[in-house]
Formats: sequence, structure tokens, C-alpha cells
Amino acid sequence: MNENRKITMKDVAREAGVSLGTVSKVINNIPVQQEYQLRVDAAVEKLGYHVNRYAKALRMNKSSFVQVILPNLHNPFFAKLADCICRALAARSYEMLLMLTESDYDREQAYIYLSEEQMVSGIICLTYNPDLVIPSGIPAVSIDRNLGPDITCVSSDNYAGGEMAAKKLIENGCRHLAFIRIGSSLPNETDKRKDGFVRACTDAGIPFHCECLNDSASFSEIESFLSAHIQHGKLDYDGIFCATDLLAYQVLAFLTENRIRVPKDVQIIGYDGVRHFGDQKLVCSTIVQPVEEMARVSVNLILSDSSQRIPYSIQLPVQFASGGTTLF
Amino acid sequence: MNENRKITMKDVAREAGVSLGTVSKVINNIPVQQEYQLRVDAAVEKLGYHVNRYAKALRMNKSSFVQVILPNLHNPFFAKLADCICRALAARSYEMLLMLTESDYDREQAYIYLSEEQMVSGIICLTYNPDLVIPSGIPAVSIDRNLGPDITCVSSDNYAGGEMAAKKLIENGCRHLAFIRIGSSLPNETDKRKDGFVRACTDAGIPFHCECLNDSASFSEIESFLSAHIQHGKLDYDGIFCATDLLAYQVLAFLTENRIRVPKDVQIIGYDGVRHFGDQKLVCSTIVQPVEEMARVSVNLILSDSSQRIPYSIQLPVQFASGGTTLF
Repeated sequence: MNENRKITMKDVAREAGVSLGTVSKVINNIPVQQEYQLRVDAAVEKLGYHVNRYAKALRMNKSSFVQVILPNLHNPFFAKLADCICRALAARSYEMLLMLTESDYDREQAYIYLSEEQMVSGIICLTYNPDLVIPSGIPAVSIDRNLGPDITCVSSDNYAGGEMAAKKLIENGCRHLAFIRIGSSLPNETDKRKDGFVRACTDAGIPFHCECLNDSASFSEIESFLSAHIQHGKLDYDGIFCATDLLAYQVLAFLTENRIRVPKDVQIIGYDGVRHFGDQKLVCSTIVQPVEEMARVSVNLILSDSSQRIPYSIQLPVQFASGGTTLF
Repeated sequence: MNENRKITMKDVAREAGVSLGTVSKVINNIPVQQEYQLRVDAAVEKLGYHVNRYAKALRMNKSSFVQVILPNLHNPFFAKLADCICRALAARSYEMLLMLTESDYDREQAYIYLSEEQMVSGIICLTYNPDLVIPSGIPAVSIDRNLGPDITCVSSDNYAGGEMAAKKLIENGCRHLAFIRIGSSLPNETDKRKDGFVRACTDAGIPFHCECLNDSASFSEIESFLSAHIQHGKLDYDGIFCATDLLAYQVLAFLTENRIRVPKDVQIIGYDGVRHFGDQKLVCSTIVQPVEEMARVSVNLILSDSSQRIPYSIQLPVQFASGGTTLF
């Protein structure tokens, strides 16, 4: 318990009456005669010997740390993702080095460069940086954006989610749909939410409008759009699919303020599956991302034997959940 | 950029045409003649030399990592705290090793023991484990619970917060107050929320009731308590102070379901300052914890020169914010 008491493998060898090589084998889980195993175990226990992870990392050229790069933790979707990744890593005796960037490109790149010094065993990142360079020797997984052929992109099935949202609204009686998004203009996986939505509306012959703003836009621009479509206290659209739950939450607040009844007059579906306080009520009716599975799959990928061929893209199934902003 | 290209200090020395000692001095910010400094800098740049943090950690007997131990990240208060700690560490070029425990005592202790192997520069933890042992050589800060005289406890001013909540409710016209809490029965800083509340009610001569349940209790027990105090559609209490915003959110939902109007008939104040999606509307009227400052103070404490005497307890000021569940 005292950091000054430096117990080394040599001390363990002396105490156990075995060679240094035997101690090394036991510590690295290489089989030795049972008698030696027991003697080393007893000596480790008696002396309170800790494996020096740094010496081990230097020897192995990698540590038990995995770098996780996210924009922030105040957005509940990112918090849930970090929570699940941290648990998935812990289940495999790895630890999470968390880096928050607020999507600042320079900071993202600086952290990625740090990964070499940190000798991390892998990188899991969520970034919209178009020029991000990831060192080729480090296994990496990107959430929601394709970073190139060497890095697996893990995401929810955004296309199916968009389709599902449109179909649900149509099934619930909506006849004039709108899709609303504020997001990066870089090509990314979440674009498919719109593509699936458009496909389902087109197939059903239902008129629709897509209002897509760049991520520099503020919600007041969405308010202007909605205001321009309110006539005699009625919104021109009776069903809205929002690209995130945050947007759905903001649209709901705006419509309620403007005395437009949700879900009676307008039904809203978000995307993500955010719950109040993490595990309370859903914020809105929503397409739920399988965050726990996305985390587990990402962790398994970066820790898998690198000689295995890994897929370029993994899309995990979503489901609709009613959270009060749709009739059903 | 390639992990296989092992550039060492020796390579840098050869390239710069200086001794190994000079390179070491430059890397450790020890002054050398400007000419040597420039030659080493140029060689470092040319060869793409990275300081090997693990070798450095072994030499210094500590790393640039700080262990942060929290119950989870799905609770938005913990997510905010982790977010702020991570940024405060990054501002000082330290990184956060995050460990989540769901308040499991064994896991908390196991992670603390890991801190020695990880050679962390400090520990910031939020735990209610009564028997937690923290290695004496590692600077540690505990959030919200006193772990003993060697470990500074950083918290919001819980007592002042409790007083503030009661005073605000009384000022807003409430005449029958209740305090509701589900929490650890271990003595801890958050007990003072109740103490301050009781003091303010007593001073004002306002009748009050405290309903405090152990953390094994579920919200249905609070529902039973509230139900037993609803007569002819009216609650016996016209002002409720909840020990957390989560509880306030749950009480609000229960009263609304039971057609009791908030804030008209009953006013509710929570504690924490949780906002929807981290930065949107407050969940309820609340006593806001200065989370950013708590994080910054905690980080500064563990990274401060350990020869300085550190205070046993630091309590940071709170403030009331109206979030729709009080009249004012």
C-alpha cells in the first residue's frame, strides 16, 4: 500500500526460491510446474507485489489503456456512449482514457497524436474532422463516420431508422411530413437518416420537406422555418422527424409555446433514444440507437486479433419507442 | 506516425551532434546553451521523436494520468462532473482515466488498488464506501464525502443550499414544507442539505416534515408517502425540497399525474442544477452546484505541490435558479 515500498520481480523470485524467469512466466500466465506456481503466488501475495504496468507496457509496446475521443459528456447521448464503452472495456480489463474535444479539429488531432506516446491499445472516436490522421499501427474504430478503409465505422442502422420514423408517422395518420436536421455538412453515416426518410415518404406517395442546416446554424433558424409554416395557429406539417432527440425536444418546446398540440396536431419522432436522467422517461418518441451494443462491438473490434480481417462498416439495428410525442 | 519506427533519445543525440545528457536536459526543460537547444529541437522535429511517457513515468514514478472514480455517466450530474474534471485536467496537460463503479464497494476498492499499478498522479473519487482504503502516497480528493483527515473533501455548500431552498419556499408563500431524500445512510456531506433546511424552517417557525429513505429504497416508497398525504385532491405540503433534481423530477411527474398543480398548489425545489441535454432548460427549480469550480478545485488540489498543507474540506457556494416548479 506504500508507493515507496518498491517490490520487484527479483524480490518475488528470492522469496519464492525460484528463478526470475519462472516469476516472469507466472506473471505472464505462461504455464510452469504447479509447485512453482504456488510458491510464486504465495510470494506475490506475501510481498504485496504489483505488476508494474509501465514496465510491462514498455516491454509489450502497448498498455491496457484505450483512448476514447468524444465531443463532450453533457450531451446525454455521448454520456451514455462513454458509460457503455467504459463498462465494455472494464469487462475486458482495459481502462478508458477519455478525451473531450467539443469537435475542435486541432484538439482531436492532438489527442490522436498523443495515443502513440500513451501506447494505447486502441482508439474509439466520434469526430467529424475531415482531415483526421490516425497512426496506422493503432487499432481504431470510428463511431458514425467513415474515416477510410482501414478504420471500421460502427453506427446504428441510420437508413432503417429514417425509414422506420417516416413509416410510423404515416401509419399514425400523418400526411405532410418534414425532416429537420442541424448537422455537419461532411458526408457521414447520419445522412442516411434523411435518405431512409425520403425513401419511405416517396414509396408511400406522401409529400415531405427536408430542412437541413449546417452545424454552425442555431435553433433559432429552425424556429424561423417553423414560424413561416404556422398559419392560423396550425403548422403545415402534421408529422416531423428530427435527426436527434435534442432537436425533437427543442421542436416540442417551440410548438408547445406556440399552442400547437403534440401529438394531437403534430407528431414528432426524434433519433437516439435519450432518457431523462439516463434511465427515466424517454424525452420524446424516438428511434432508439443500440448504444450498449455499439460500445461492445467497438471494444471487441479494437481488442480483436489484428490479423483478422475486420469489416469496413458495421450497422446495428434500431427500434422505435413511443415517448409521448406520437399518438402510438 | 509509425509505431514500429522506434526513435530513441540516442538517435536524437546523434542527429543533433550533442550528448545524451543534453538531449535529456532539453526534454526535461532544464536550460542548456541556446545553440544546443536549437539543435536538439531540430533533431526532435526531424526524427519525429516522441517522449516515451512510460519510460518517463517509470523514471518519475508517476504518470500524466489521474484516476477518476464515479458511479456512472448516465446520471447527468455525474456526466457533468466528469466532463468538467476531464477539461480541467486537459488544461493542465493531464489525462483522465475514468472508472465507473455503480457504487459497488468491491469495484471501487479494486480500482483504487489499480491506481498504484497505473502510477497515477492523483485520484478524484465520488464514493459512499465506508471502508475504502486509499494508498497513502497518492494525492486524492473525495467529492461529497469525508474519507478521513488526509483526503480533502470537495463539495458544494450543502448546508447553505438546504437553508436557501427552505427560505425560498417560505418567501414564495409555502407554509407546510417537506424534505424528501433517498440516499446513503452513511454520514456524508449531502446530509447537510437536510440540516440547513431544518434550521431555516425552525428559525422561521414553519412546520415541516423530513422523509429520508435509505438508498436501497425505490421511488415507489416516496409515492406511497405522497399518496398518504393527498386528501381531497390536495397535498398536505405546499412546498417540497428534494435532495436531488432526479427526485424533484420524479415528484413533479407523480404530482402532475395526480392532477396536483406545480407550482400553483405545490412548489418544488431540487438540488444539483441539472439541465435537459446538459445545456437546455433546467429540469426544475433548483439549488445549482458549482460543478465546474468543484472540478477545477479538485484538479488543482491533487496536482498541487504536496508539501503544501491542504485543507480538510472545501465547500463551494451554491445558488438558486428558477426552473418552473416554483412561483418565482
